[in-house]
Amino acid sequence: MTSILDVAPEHAPVAAALAESLLHVEEAFELQLRSDLPPVEDLCRHVERYRGKMLRPTMVLLSGMAAGAPREGVIGDDHITIAAVTEMVHLATLVHDDVLDEAETRRRGDTVNRLRGNEVAVILGDYLISKAFHLCSQLDSQDAALRIGEVTNRVCEGELLQLHHRDNHSLDEDTYFEIIRRKTASLIGVACELGASRSGASSDVQYRFRDYGEKLGMAFQIRDDLLDITGDEMVVGKSLGKDLEKGKLTLPMIHHLQTADPMTRGRTLVLLDDFRADSPEHQGAALEAIRSTGSIEYALSEARRLVSEAKASLDAVVDSPARALMLDLAEAVLAREH
Amino acid sequence: MTSILDVAPEHAPVAAALAESLLHVEEAFELQLRSDLPPVEDLCRHVERYRGKMLRPTMVLLSGMAAGAPREGVIGDDHITIAAVTEMVHLATLVHDDVLDEAETRRRGDTVNRLRGNEVAVILGDYLISKAFHLCSQLDSQDAALRIGEVTNRVCEGELLQLHHRDNHSLDEDTYFEIIRRKTASLIGVACELGASRSGASSDVQYRFRDYGEKLGMAFQIRDDLLDITGDEMVVGKSLGKDLEKGKLTLPMIHHLQTADPMTRGRTLVLLDDFRADSPEHQGAALEAIRSTGSIEYALSEARRLVSEAKASLDAVVDSPARALMLDLAEAVLAREH
Repeated sequence: MTSILDVAPEHAPVAAALAESLLHVEEAFELQLRSDLPPVEDLCRHVERYRGKMLRPTMVLLSGMAAGAPREGVIGDDHITIAAVTEMVHLATLVHDDVLDEAETRRRGDTVNRLRGNEVAVILGDYLISKAFHLCSQLDSQDAALRIGEVTNRVCEGELLQLHHRDNHSLDEDTYFEIIRRKTASLIGVACELGASRSGASSDVQYRFRDYGEKLGMAFQIRDDLLDITGDEMVVGKSLGKDLEKGKLTLPMIHHLQTADPMTRGRTLVLLDDFRADSPEHQGAALEAIRSTGSIEYALSEARRLVSEAKASLDAVVDSPARALMLDLAEAVLAREH
Repeated sequence: MTSILDVAPEHAPVAAALAESLLHVEEAFELQLRSDLPPVEDLCRHVERYRGKMLRPTMVLLSGMAAGAPREGVIGDDHITIAAVTEMVHLATLVHDDVLDEAETRRRGDTVNRLRGNEVAVILGDYLISKAFHLCSQLDSQDAALRIGEVTNRVCEGELLQLHHRDNHSLDEDTYFEIIRRKTASLIGVACELGASRSGASSDVQYRFRDYGEKLGMAFQIRDDLLDITGDEMVVGKSLGKDLEKGKLTLPMIHHLQTADPMTRGRTLVLLDDFRADSPEHQGAALEAIRSTGSIEYALSEARRLVSEAKASLDAVVDSPARALMLDLAEAVLAREH
């Protein structure tokens, strides 16, 4: 997250160590995204621009530092490799998500599908997944590859479950949470788990880190989903309103439909039936609807609860500057505007 | 290949051993394609129907038997696992290819994209890739995962190169061969290589097996591409004419455009400009064009040359029933009608 650079003064040393390690992650990443074929190389350079917040690598590295504390300099090559792998998997999902969502902008630039067509975007996403697994299989031991594989299975299952429930206006909260747990939280969870495991943490401690990552990941996704309805396209830097256009119900809308009076609910269902992301009227009406039932505040309170639980997962972890930064980062999820 | 069951009488014992091992591969495959989510489970059952010829698992197993000869019963769990992995990777590429080609039928049934939409097909393909890598990382040693990762990188590069050259009516033969070497031949090559390596073959012998697989794979793809123009949809069991409709030039058309007189070439370019796979007139005109320059015979002769080279790669390999069957299988590629 770019916001992690705006850290409190007492976090400056750990933030600097993190920033240095992130540079190594970027190098590992760029080294992988090479091809001897010029047209493929061009695509790799384009997709590199998608790297933004580097949330998942940050989680690997901070978990590695926190789990290794009070020892310093525990970040090794394995941490860097795993961090690069998690970012590649994430980029692959972004590229394929943009195909699914017919999104046109990402990180303020054109998406691959817009520039080069869906076909190229599908195969480029495959290429990123393949590169991620290839890099993962270069680690000394296989357990990280096994865990990453388990998690990418879950990510896909989450996406498939979400697609299955498109246009399901009766989608319940439990299913929504199941979807975001698999499609988003599991990857952030395994980033934290493997970061800790590579610093020699016991399986019990690894579990705490994973739990922190999953809870934070769910809060992050709730915030992300909320921004799709309430955000400012110029600030967020990507196409908005796509969830509703695609019949993808997220927490505020689920809550709204569950709590609205029958007439309001009926009006919202009519709106959803033919929702267009490029219509300011439709966007405004959706916003007004979820506001009328307090559903924005409800979604935020759920995110707040998950952030508290994430922080509590680290209660029994020995205190360190890295752990303190992880606690602050969890709070930062609630404040994010992009 | 279903045709491997129609073996010469002297191959009956090795064919029986192969068939038994293929059953174990199917079991390993089905065991992987499970999900606790009912809608995902439904998709897995659908995609299982795509398993057809099982060419890649057959290559792993026969190479394992041939490289281990004259010992019998050399096929172990690793062979079975690797065989299942290669088939999963292949299925993933089929599912995504069908999206790219907007194909409607596959193995005489509806494609996933037709039944459930492109979005589901994209993620289902990702799921298959993920499951393949996850299974691969369960092997005792990592070298197979590393090689599979290298090859899936190459497969994607081949696909991206092919997409880059869509509608390029000046595509040359070298680039065509580079495309099919990467997108098709590399996976069949690594299937043979890993089959041999798991039977304890030296790296020199592994290389011969890989070379056999790559040459056979290229011949196989040339035949496949030819069937897209000359085949009978009822016999082949999938949508035909898609290559020309999608601006994908394959060997017979490349040869035709290179050798036709200017007027014929001009007529063909007009035809390609607006080619529709569902038009019998267009299909007939394309067939007549490539016939007029002897381009069908030319493509077949290239396939024949590659089959000879594939067989020659096994010259120095000790003779065995499995090796003999591999030589016959190479010939069968030339005769395939589906």
